[in-house]
Amino acid sequence: MGIVVALAGQVGGAKLADGFARLRGADCAVVVNTGDDYEHLGLSFCPDLDTLLYTLSGVGSPATPWEPAGDTQALYGMLKLLGGPDRLALGDKSLAAPLLRTAWQAQDRRLTEITADFCRHLGIQARVLPMSDDQVRTHVLTDDGAVAFQEYFTTLGCEPAVHGFQYAGADVAQLTPEIANVLDSPDLEAVVITPANPYHTIAPILEVQGMREMLRKRRAPVIAVSPIVGGRALRGTAGKMMAELGHDASALRASMEYLRLADGFVLDTEDAAQADAVRANGMEVLVTQTIMRSAEDRVALAQAVLDFARAIGEKKQVEAQAA
Amino acid sequence: MGIVVALAGQVGGAKLADGFARLRGADCAVVVNTGDDYEHLGLSFCPDLDTLLYTLSGVGSPATPWEPAGDTQALYGMLKLLGGPDRLALGDKSLAAPLLRTAWQAQDRRLTEITADFCRHLGIQARVLPMSDDQVRTHVLTDDGAVAFQEYFTTLGCEPAVHGFQYAGADVAQLTPEIANVLDSPDLEAVVITPANPYHTIAPILEVQGMREMLRKRRAPVIAVSPIVGGRALRGTAGKMMAELGHDASALRASMEYLRLADGFVLDTEDAAQADAVRANGMEVLVTQTIMRSAEDRVALAQAVLDFARAIGEKKQVEAQAA
Repeated sequence: MGIVVALAGQVGGAKLADGFARLRGADCAVVVNTGDDYEHLGLSFCPDLDTLLYTLSGVGSPATPWEPAGDTQALYGMLKLLGGPDRLALGDKSLAAPLLRTAWQAQDRRLTEITADFCRHLGIQARVLPMSDDQVRTHVLTDDGAVAFQEYFTTLGCEPAVHGFQYAGADVAQLTPEIANVLDSPDLEAVVITPANPYHTIAPILEVQGMREMLRKRRAPVIAVSPIVGGRALRGTAGKMMAELGHDASALRASMEYLRLADGFVLDTEDAAQADAVRANGMEVLVTQTIMRSAEDRVALAQAVLDFARAIGEKKQVEAQAA
Repeated sequence: MGIVVALAGQVGGAKLADGFARLRGADCAVVVNTGDDYEHLGLSFCPDLDTLLYTLSGVGSPATPWEPAGDTQALYGMLKLLGGPDRLALGDKSLAAPLLRTAWQAQDRRLTEITADFCRHLGIQARVLPMSDDQVRTHVLTDDGAVAFQEYFTTLGCEPAVHGFQYAGADVAQLTPEIANVLDSPDLEAVVITPANPYHTIAPILEVQGMREMLRKRRAPVIAVSPIVGGRALRGTAGKMMAELGHDASALRASMEYLRLADGFVLDTEDAAQADAVRANGMEVLVTQTIMRSAEDRVALAQAVLDFARAIGEKKQVEAQAA
């Protein structure tokens, strides 16, 4: 058994990453999107990182995995009473990570180190790796110009039609030694693109300097799990964005976001009819149950993805020997 | 009726300031010690300012007036889980003011403006004025050297014997225009030194550049209310510090901290026997009930102090006319 690297963010990504973490522990590395990070009240908010931490540690709320279970808003109530901004509701428990992260960043600690410290204290064995220690900010291009993802998501309620994306800072953001180390490992077993928004969760990760190059030189299969099931995203705005970008909101179309990158694509049973079309684009296909309602579902999908990756690896080896 | 200026900090100071605020509203100005302020987790904590805000707005806890009523520690629990510092317990509601203050200070807003904004939103009519917008930090001199007041108070539990105090930054801290304005007002009716620790609450205020000069030129009586009742401080460490500094922990000795500054001194009925000795040092004396258990007690003491100030003012006028 080797090292599994999951590219992740959002709830679906965190759930599948949790499946790998449960299977592999420290031999699971999760590369997490930080393009949706933002500053508010002087604090560094990293929504995808925190969702991962809460999910992998089990402190997350089952219904709202981006926050710790049983969160309250006592601070937020007092903040509004004092005349503070009310546009973002702030959970008491949810504020702990941004507060501590900001304090430690002010001491010149890298985001990767800070996240590793959080993991150690939360008892997370898997390696949770921010996609870069440098700042990348995803901007959504709309009719009214470019807006920061967080503004699009909260203030604008995902309302404006999306024409494209910019990943500000990605062209100079450096790959971390920790990520280079796992992607370059002789023990690399699979790289998994988790079911998350291709545009603002997975794309920013791929845009970090050197990431695509590392993936091109991969010694293990890359498997993507469809973020679209039955023509829509389970959560989030992937389906809406695909339509606004002029695409079908389909698993087939989602697979095309990973052409020439993914060796295999995982379709939900509901989308089995699209398997041949995905194969025609040059990807191996696994059709399986991808909706993760329980911890068992997460582990089962993670195992299915790893079995799929192994099969692809063996097939490639046979082909290479035959050639 | 003119303007009453209270020099304040701590619980006793906040209670008496509340009495003046209830009597005079916007014609009450409270000059607040910031020498006990500190930074923690990158946030600006101003314990005396916040105690004033909570007390004057009524959001404070009756039992623990330095925090809002019904405070919780959800953030603090999560912070410890993440490996954050545990030496200072942090209340959720109590964190709102430091968080917002820090964010606004980062926008180059003055502490005085920020505090005025808090007051406006909390419905406080009285003017709550930080003693300076510049940083002053009180250090306690102990056998082990100088320690920041906050460290002495929390980490060291007020344990080490105190040999003296330093008010770092006071020699360059500027008087604010708002304080200069009220102290220089032709409507100034009285300046009241509230019952608070003379060394780390009142002294830092007096050490701010220009403060003593403004008070020397006063057009109204200065009245000090004893922080010592029956040989001890009601709360806090005034009595302990006086003993360690080689003094009696008595109201008489406390009055001597304000020689050549206060025209009158207010003794608790319990200390009536010391009245003559205080008078012998050149101060007028009022003996009254100074322990404030209820809002009525605060107002009654505030009114008694103002009546005392008026009597002193009239007596001075008669003396001046006779001379």
